[in-house]
Amino acid sequence: MDRRILFFASLLLLAGVSELWADTKKEPVSYVNPMIGTSGMGHTFPGACAPFGIVQLSPETDTIPQNIDGRYVGKVYAYCAGYQHDDPTIVGFSHTHLSGTGHSDLGDIMIMPQTGALKLNPGTADKPENGYRSRFSHDTEIAEPGYYAVTLSDYNIKAEMTATQRVGVHRYTFPQGNDCRIILDMLHGIYNYDGKVLWSSLRVENDTLITGYRITNGWARCNYTYFAMSLSKPIKDYGYKDMKTPKYQGFWRKFNVNRNFPEIAGRDIVAYFNFDNSDSQPLVIKVALSAVGTDGALKNLRAEASGKSFDQIRTETEGLWNHELGLIECEGTDDQKAMLYTSLYHTMINPSIYMDVDRRYRGLDGNIHVAENFDNYTIFSVWDTYRALHPLLGLIKPDRNTDMVKSMIAHQQQSVHHMLPVWSLMANEGWCMTGYHAVTVLADALVKGADIDRDAAMKAMVETATCPYYESLGDYMRLGYAPFDKNGTAASNTLEYSFDDWTIYSAAKHLGMEDIAGQFEKRALYYRNTFDKSIGFANARYSDGSFKKDLDPYQTSGEGFIEGNSWNFSFQAPQDVDGLISLFGGDKAFIGKLDRLFEMDLPAKYYEHNEDVTADCLVGGYVHGNEPSHHIPYLYAWTSQPWKTQTWMRTIMNKMYRNHIRGLGGNDDCGQMSAWYIFSAMGFYPVCPGSDQYVLGAPYLPYIDVTLSNGKHIIIKAPNVSDKNRYVRSVKINGKPYSKMYVTHSMLDSGCEIEFVMGSKPNKKRGLAESDKPYSMTKGA
Amino acid sequence: MDRRILFFASLLLLAGVSELWADTKKEPVSYVNPMIGTSGMGHTFPGACAPFGIVQLSPETDTIPQNIDGRYVGKVYAYCAGYQHDDPTIVGFSHTHLSGTGHSDLGDIMIMPQTGALKLNPGTADKPENGYRSRFSHDTEIAEPGYYAVTLSDYNIKAEMTATQRVGVHRYTFPQGNDCRIILDMLHGIYNYDGKVLWSSLRVENDTLITGYRITNGWARCNYTYFAMSLSKPIKDYGYKDMKTPKYQGFWRKFNVNRNFPEIAGRDIVAYFNFDNSDSQPLVIKVALSAVGTDGALKNLRAEASGKSFDQIRTETEGLWNHELGLIECEGTDDQKAMLYTSLYHTMINPSIYMDVDRRYRGLDGNIHVAENFDNYTIFSVWDTYRALHPLLGLIKPDRNTDMVKSMIAHQQQSVHHMLPVWSLMANEGWCMTGYHAVTVLADALVKGADIDRDAAMKAMVETATCPYYESLGDYMRLGYAPFDKNGTAASNTLEYSFDDWTIYSAAKHLGMEDIAGQFEKRALYYRNTFDKSIGFANARYSDGSFKKDLDPYQTSGEGFIEGNSWNFSFQAPQDVDGLISLFGGDKAFIGKLDRLFEMDLPAKYYEHNEDVTADCLVGGYVHGNEPSHHIPYLYAWTSQPWKTQTWMRTIMNKMYRNHIRGLGGNDDCGQMSAWYIFSAMGFYPVCPGSDQYVLGAPYLPYIDVTLSNGKHIIIKAPNVSDKNRYVRSVKINGKPYSKMYVTHSMLDSGCEIEFVMGSKPNKKRGLAESDKPYSMTKGA
Repeated sequence: MDRRILFFASLLLLAGVSELWADTKKEPVSYVNPMIGTSGMGHTFPGACAPFGIVQLSPETDTIPQNIDGRYVGKVYAYCAGYQHDDPTIVGFSHTHLSGTGHSDLGDIMIMPQTGALKLNPGTADKPENGYRSRFSHDTEIAEPGYYAVTLSDYNIKAEMTATQRVGVHRYTFPQGNDCRIILDMLHGIYNYDGKVLWSSLRVENDTLITGYRITNGWARCNYTYFAMSLSKPIKDYGYKDMKTPKYQGFWRKFNVNRNFPEIAGRDIVAYFNFDNSDSQPLVIKVALSAVGTDGALKNLRAEASGKSFDQIRTETEGLWNHELGLIECEGTDDQKAMLYTSLYHTMINPSIYMDVDRRYRGLDGNIHVAENFDNYTIFSVWDTYRALHPLLGLIKPDRNTDMVKSMIAHQQQSVHHMLPVWSLMANEGWCMTGYHAVTVLADALVKGADIDRDAAMKAMVETATCPYYESLGDYMRLGYAPFDKNGTAASNTLEYSFDDWTIYSAAKHLGMEDIAGQFEKRALYYRNTFDKSIGFANARYSDGSFKKDLDPYQTSGEGFIEGNSWNFSFQAPQDVDGLISLFGGDKAFIGKLDRLFEMDLPAKYYEHNEDVTADCLVGGYVHGNEPSHHIPYLYAWTSQPWKTQTWMRTIMNKMYRNHIRGLGGNDDCGQMSAWYIFSAMGFYPVCPGSDQYVLGAPYLPYIDVTLSNGKHIIIKAPNVSDKNRYVRSVKINGKPYSKMYVTHSMLDSGCEIEFVMGSKPNKKRGLAESDKPYSMTKGA
Repeated sequence: MDRRILFFASLLLLAGVSELWADTKKEPVSYVNPMIGTSGMGHTFPGACAPFGIVQLSPETDTIPQNIDGRYVGKVYAYCAGYQHDDPTIVGFSHTHLSGTGHSDLGDIMIMPQTGALKLNPGTADKPENGYRSRFSHDTEIAEPGYYAVTLSDYNIKAEMTATQRVGVHRYTFPQGNDCRIILDMLHGIYNYDGKVLWSSLRVENDTLITGYRITNGWARCNYTYFAMSLSKPIKDYGYKDMKTPKYQGFWRKFNVNRNFPEIAGRDIVAYFNFDNSDSQPLVIKVALSAVGTDGALKNLRAEASGKSFDQIRTETEGLWNHELGLIECEGTDDQKAMLYTSLYHTMINPSIYMDVDRRYRGLDGNIHVAENFDNYTIFSVWDTYRALHPLLGLIKPDRNTDMVKSMIAHQQQSVHHMLPVWSLMANEGWCMTGYHAVTVLADALVKGADIDRDAAMKAMVETATCPYYESLGDYMRLGYAPFDKNGTAASNTLEYSFDDWTIYSAAKHLGMEDIAGQFEKRALYYRNTFDKSIGFANARYSDGSFKKDLDPYQTSGEGFIEGNSWNFSFQAPQDVDGLISLFGGDKAFIGKLDRLFEMDLPAKYYEHNEDVTADCLVGGYVHGNEPSHHIPYLYAWTSQPWKTQTWMRTIMNKMYRNHIRGLGGNDDCGQMSAWYIFSAMGFYPVCPGSDQYVLGAPYLPYIDVTLSNGKHIIIKAPNVSDKNRYVRSVKINGKPYSKMYVTHSMLDSGCEIEFVMGSKPNKKRGLAESDKPYSMTKGA
């Protein structure tokens, strides 16, 4: 062949390949970077999962507990998702994780491949050779939606993970040679302590199938994790060690239970399984989970993974992700696209499907229920997610959000307190954080027309909001505020209860349930009872009516607030911003206070010892890393200077959302941080869930097209947007000039095109008319 | 009224009452004395239960564990049923018990009523005032089928108990006054140790309903006991103490969880509930159990007890017992009737129904199953009960026995070992004792025509008998005997396996499954391989073929046998008695050996330190307290002196079965001892279950009429029987002279009248012809 022909042919070939490459690159999954937030405060995990899947198969880098005086102390907070990017070793790969939370747990059913000498202890990060863990290099890591790979350098084992909703699939490629082993550490966990495992059990059903379960007393107080595990190679031999001498061995002396005995149980079990590697074929392990039983896990295994290769499952799950993520199309830089698609990815991990393929699930009452008319979900970090995640899912994934609401109602019906979830996971109520914001999630769904049983929903909301022994709620109902002498977070509780109460009022109004509306109308304004006009801040108040003296409004702890200081929490009345403005002394004073919040120089002493507040998540005194602030930049919309929202939005987004391992300026909190980003990038935000309004901010990208599940599109155009052109000069909706500071749910849900004309200077005249202003319960009170 | 008229009227009234009394006395329940066996070795309990009910609500007198070096040591054996008659105090009333077993466990969900100062610890027997326990007098005790009463003298509380199959009903009559309380001790248990409770949970659903559960790691390795408890009075207030500081309290700091907080959980929970007693009405508590969930327990509560008074339930359960016990009518002294009806009563406690009213049950695999075509039973003490209990139930309660067999097959199908139960309880295999005698239970049912899936049954039997890692079974299959160098009870194992193997052979023959029969024919004679002809005893044998030297045939432990010495175990070949006779050296030698067994003077050193063997259970060297001897007195039937059976039968029965708290000469073992008595009292015994023969002995009572469930009757007449007239002179069946030494199942099942002519001297000529002899696998080998 003529060399020149070869040269041109090669060029053509290259062109073809690069065209293919370009095509591949266009798929949404290719923009997702699961590593965002895996270092520092993001608390995300890099492992493999399917959209909303309960199996989240991910490496754990260091979760060894430190047991001090019988209580767990130590690496809890940093390891909420089990992975910290800076760590040098991987301990193993477990199947359950929390995504971005501020509380840790799970890490169930951990597998670690191994060669060489049998090691049943994990070892330590500084001396990994003392245990089964392995060093690794990030260079060998691949993290994609539904796929994770890493090479375990101490063993030269390539570890790959993929997952369906209920099945985690491992593929371990061992180096050539005959020894090839996995460790199944039933004792390992996140938020582990000596005694967390109440019981664990393994059954070697045959040489390619293991079933088992464990019951743990972690943050999820009594958590049942059953599994069924199929193996691509027959087990050669196996055994286990009970890491403590079992108290009662009974008649197990009859057998040699430690070797090749197929029934293993105890509280401190670490098992191992040896395989033949003479064929050098990788070992593929499929692990299905269930909270119902090993029979449920087996059904899940058969329905989702049996008969499929690792690659087939990986491809299918990638397809599911492309489908889910494909509802957004956008223009922007690759980093911007990475941030947007990764954010969308992070909104579709928790809440997670919590039922077997036969629809059985474990309820809050510990009993097994059948989800007749909904898919049951768990992991409700509601204090976080009522703000933007549920409104976002309600807009772009309404069927899923409706099922989440139905799951919450089922939870309420199974609750001995008759309460909706506060922070629930794995059929347990963890009671983390405050308020009863599931009420808001329900109200928001009702107001936006979700197909739920309105009577059951309203009953659940009212019963939740009237549980007299729930965190000062009795006192709140009696006094109009939670008293600080009885409750260390009384001030923020009052603010949160009052907002949640407004959502009941709003939903009841919407449904024509005037009795209930009347019952909660007054409570919706109780936020005022904890506002200390003498100092212009929300302040903790005692039972006798007096306010806390010497409030330090910068201080997060000890002042009557939770995960936020008074400076931020004082703006917590999205249901009645006009009333709030009055409390602050009117428009000018309110704007001044907002300006001060964003512009102040917060002294380091207020965050340097705080797990939740770091310099990374601050804009002035505005703390984006904690949720109570999330709506604050939008509050300018109610003032005479609505354009100031636009000033700060881009600053916050540029700082807090970066395509980088440390790219999240705070815990992602099951997608709340990410949902905030998606809304804000579109140019509007649900400041007041439970109303049908989204307050306008400023779009971040020149073009976003959201395909709704009804087939309609929300198209956001802001062709000339940039860091410089951050200001909204004018807005057109469906081609017509639009002056309001908000859009409504029905406008969006019907499909619409919102065109922003951006500029480097604010249009200070836009959105000033009373009729342009968003909802406020009272007006100029 | 004329005084004389009054006098005569009173007399008439008295006559009427006493006539009523006499009528009442004729009911079978009135003969039952549940106190038989509650002192010493009987291990029976006096509390209330329904026939075959899982709830066995009974007082516990002392089960406090002694924890030595992390292992439970102490009052285990004597408290198998929780009650010892000699004890001075009652600790409380719990809902689950084992009847007559040689291993202890259960004692779940214990309630104790209380007045005065709150005490949450049980205290000790010597200082009961230090805890909630109370002294009591046996004078205040009433124990009847389905009813138990006692006065707790420290509180002057009258405690009464009744039960349905799944619901225990308490009635506590408190002394007048306002304080009135129950303790619910979730930590209490039989076979308790520090850490037995893996998890416990209580929910105060409303002021008259509590639900909860506990998971325990006892002999039943992982036992789930759920309950639903309804109260006749509203709870005034309540609380609990976690007897240890919980390791993780999570966000429970949000509540005052110790007082009136309806969700209680932990590993060491003792709760209390206060009630108003100003109406002086008794407190009635209904506690339904389930192994499935609190929802199952609630269903059980509603189906069996809701809307019924204590007295109504008591009357209904008494009626059920009268119905069950009424299948026997008899003549005899009151003590003899007490013994017979109490024996029948004790055969209808374990095995117990183990499924909810909706047919859901927890299987051996830990999963929830639905019993589609059978009632599921648990508590299978098969090493004991294969001998006489199951044959008895197969004869008089064939439907129940068939369901028990089906429950065993379900167990086998759920077993990771594919094995039938060895000693199973509460969805756990306890592995207590030896052999695989469930095989025999199935074979016996098959041979006697029970309606079970013969293929599933035979598969279960074969798989059980070929599990290679079960207690030397692999070696047994290879060598023809279990080797003593690998197994401390090798000799008795060999004898037991071999008999069980014969039953597979027998059933396979019966079903025409020649392949399987052929497979087990040889194994049926392996018993011979452990017979040491050099000493004329069964003896432990080593892998190299040699026998143990210096066998002490009187010694129970350390010699290769379990719960029996070589003297007794050497007669363990009911499948091949003729072959056994040959091994012993022929008829004369065999008779001599049997005579010696019954006549010897066993030195005290062989039983004085043995839990199982006491002077109470000995006739010479014959140990009736342990089951391996149970068939031995009948072995004379195969010899030239069959009348000698008659000599010993009455001696054994008079000594071992007395209407007295110490009236049982050994553990009742879930009714095996009692079933032996019932058969023997009728004059025949299933020496070789798996055959259709019952070997004739000597009747104990002058008249017994057994109504079979098919409506036919077995009528036993021995009008002149007495201690003196203990010998069978002649036998007529259905009016015709009968010379054989056995009757068959079909003869009995078709209904028959067996008339024994008794005398003070034996008829030494009866039953000598070869054709009169019972089955033997080999004849004169």
